[in-house]
Amino acid sequence: MTQAETTNTARDDSSPVTDDEIFAGHGGGKLTVAAKRPISSPRDLSVAYTPGVAKVSRAIAEDASLAKRYTWADRLVAVVSDGTAVLGLGDIGASASLPVMEGKSVLFKTFGGLDSIPLVLDTTDVDEIVETLVRLRPSFGAVNLEDIAAPRCFELEDKLKAALDCPVMHDDQHGTAIVTLAALRGANLVLGRDIAGQRVVISGAGAAGVACTKILQEAGVADVTVLDSKGIIHAGREGLNPVKAKLAETTNAAGLTGGLAEALRGADVFLGLSGSTIDESLLGAMAEGSIVFALSNPDPEVHPEVAARYASIVATGRSDFPNQINNVLAFPGVFRGALDAGARAITENMKLAAADAIVAVAQDDLGPDRIVPSPLDPRVAPEVAAAVAKAAVEDGVTG
Amino acid sequence: MTQAETTNTARDDSSPVTDDEIFAGHGGGKLTVAAKRPISSPRDLSVAYTPGVAKVSRAIAEDASLAKRYTWADRLVAVVSDGTAVLGLGDIGASASLPVMEGKSVLFKTFGGLDSIPLVLDTTDVDEIVETLVRLRPSFGAVNLEDIAAPRCFELEDKLKAALDCPVMHDDQHGTAIVTLAALRGANLVLGRDIAGQRVVISGAGAAGVACTKILQEAGVADVTVLDSKGIIHAGREGLNPVKAKLAETTNAAGLTGGLAEALRGADVFLGLSGSTIDESLLGAMAEGSIVFALSNPDPEVHPEVAARYASIVATGRSDFPNQINNVLAFPGVFRGALDAGARAITENMKLAAADAIVAVAQDDLGPDRIVPSPLDPRVAPEVAAAVAKAAVEDGVTG
Repeated sequence: MTQAETTNTARDDSSPVTDDEIFAGHGGGKLTVAAKRPISSPRDLSVAYTPGVAKVSRAIAEDASLAKRYTWADRLVAVVSDGTAVLGLGDIGASASLPVMEGKSVLFKTFGGLDSIPLVLDTTDVDEIVETLVRLRPSFGAVNLEDIAAPRCFELEDKLKAALDCPVMHDDQHGTAIVTLAALRGANLVLGRDIAGQRVVISGAGAAGVACTKILQEAGVADVTVLDSKGIIHAGREGLNPVKAKLAETTNAAGLTGGLAEALRGADVFLGLSGSTIDESLLGAMAEGSIVFALSNPDPEVHPEVAARYASIVATGRSDFPNQINNVLAFPGVFRGALDAGARAITENMKLAAADAIVAVAQDDLGPDRIVPSPLDPRVAPEVAAAVAKAAVEDGVTG
Repeated sequence: MTQAETTNTARDDSSPVTDDEIFAGHGGGKLTVAAKRPISSPRDLSVAYTPGVAKVSRAIAEDASLAKRYTWADRLVAVVSDGTAVLGLGDIGASASLPVMEGKSVLFKTFGGLDSIPLVLDTTDVDEIVETLVRLRPSFGAVNLEDIAAPRCFELEDKLKAALDCPVMHDDQHGTAIVTLAALRGANLVLGRDIAGQRVVISGAGAAGVACTKILQEAGVADVTVLDSKGIIHAGREGLNPVKAKLAETTNAAGLTGGLAEALRGADVFLGLSGSTIDESLLGAMAEGSIVFALSNPDPEVHPEVAARYASIVATGRSDFPNQINNVLAFPGVFRGALDAGARAITENMKLAAADAIVAVAQDDLGPDRIVPSPLDPRVAPEVAAAVAKAAVEDGVTG
């Protein structure tokens, strides 16, 4: 794919994508497995299968480290889901989640040059999922968790990271957080502001909301307020689950209570990760020159053209509006970098480095409608991979 | 691949395959995952990923049967091993077994046109393996068990068939049995004999020996005698495990006792599946015009040139001698046929039909050195698939 082919300009046919086109694009699934080297002679068969393969198996049995060199597992990403939080569709089950996982594998290959296999699970029990992946450990080299409902996703990721000596990342948390941080940096560069001084309001305390809060704090944003479906999360609220109780401790230093109206008054940044909608009048109460990221998919919290009446910079998750904030800017490069470096884990610094690398690619061409690179920009994944690999070495998690 | 390219004639370079060549042929592993349709425009991304994929996931959530049409899982073979009986190498573990499983996937694709993924397991517990595959059920459409030690392999296959509503086959058992039956039919056609009247001696009561015994009996061979490392299996022997106790009941009607010398005296067919060696003098005591299949890999029980001094027809598992009896003649077509038919299981009739189809392909060109088709003969898998699919329909295991 050349760079010229990947600009945001749509093909000749810029009409809306039709259902027929979508279903045709999924016929028989979206993935295929191919041999790296063809089998067309008895000699090929002797090399790839019996008797040749016995020498390779014996070599690995004698020196386990050779599996890295002579199997595909060490660089293979398992794309794992239980189908409990699929896009905006909710708990639709493992089988119905598979098209998303296949799509993820297509993107891993297209942008990161990485092989991956979807593994969708007919269990939602955290310990059973961990146990299953521990048993399959020799089959893969990294785990991308996907579309797993909060708060179970937090426990699952923590336990899996503890159980496996390889990169594990829940993309709905950290992929979203990385790209959101990159976009917010890009927007602040356009507006000539410092990210640290912003007052940020996050609507949604699920996987993405929690991870975005954390990465923004790590990036120096002191004033973050988070809302769930019941309103502002604050220390005085009853019945918070442990994840939200921790959010109450670390956010909302002003002790705000109430709902979005109270939270957004005078805020600099609205970050929508909720799947709900927001009344435009609330945007009018934000600070001058505000930033609105309405990231819910497929329906943003507010139509970007409406938001633009109030905000200086608007972004969504959609490809049919400017400033598409899409995880594909992060995960192919993050996993590629982690695997290139032989990392045993994905650290906070590796995520921050990924966000910086995305900003660096955008920087040449920044503008109010270009705060992040196009999802198809082929420069992004290699830059992210290099930055992530470097951070992995610096953090001492390689080898 | 044209037929001309697949004759048994080696390429220009007919020198022995070198270690360098073998290891180079395994660099980075042998498999890769590819997108069926490339992603090169925002429109492609909208179709394959968000927002398009949501329509497909929602459709499957509403009608589970659509997963067959719009995901790859329904036709995906999981190639599963715990690495306990890898080729002739024994219990070398999951990771060291992976090159064999990758090779299997290459052959599934090359000959059967089927996608498959190796899943190697870090457990040898039968119930844990079953549980793992039950949890992963929405991820695949069939299971090829591979290189799992006997007698555990029998229990595992039985439990897995009971637990999963899809084709399950332990190839070391049934692939070997199908191809061996086909070869024995071919040999008898060359010799103008009826298979039913043969006295067959099988050395080895592991996965392959047990399955070969069963399929030969199903094919009408009345007189089968089986030996394990302690000698002839007969009803009077103490300490037989349940599988061998059943063999003692159903074989060796003459009540032979002793070792290979006693078993082979006057026998028509020797089938070596033991990994051990056999003294050539014993072959001299077989009946006139005997058949010797020395199938252990990589070292046959007896060198085929030595065996040819005594036997009318000799076969091995090796590609560097005539009459290579290799499972690749069976498994790609068996699974392809089962999946084409939408079979929920692989029945005995489907296996017998596969053997008949292999014989039918060989029939045009039969000879003492051509009792089975070449492993690379591209006619085999489609003929096997068609016969297996037909048998599946006849057995009522489809749909």
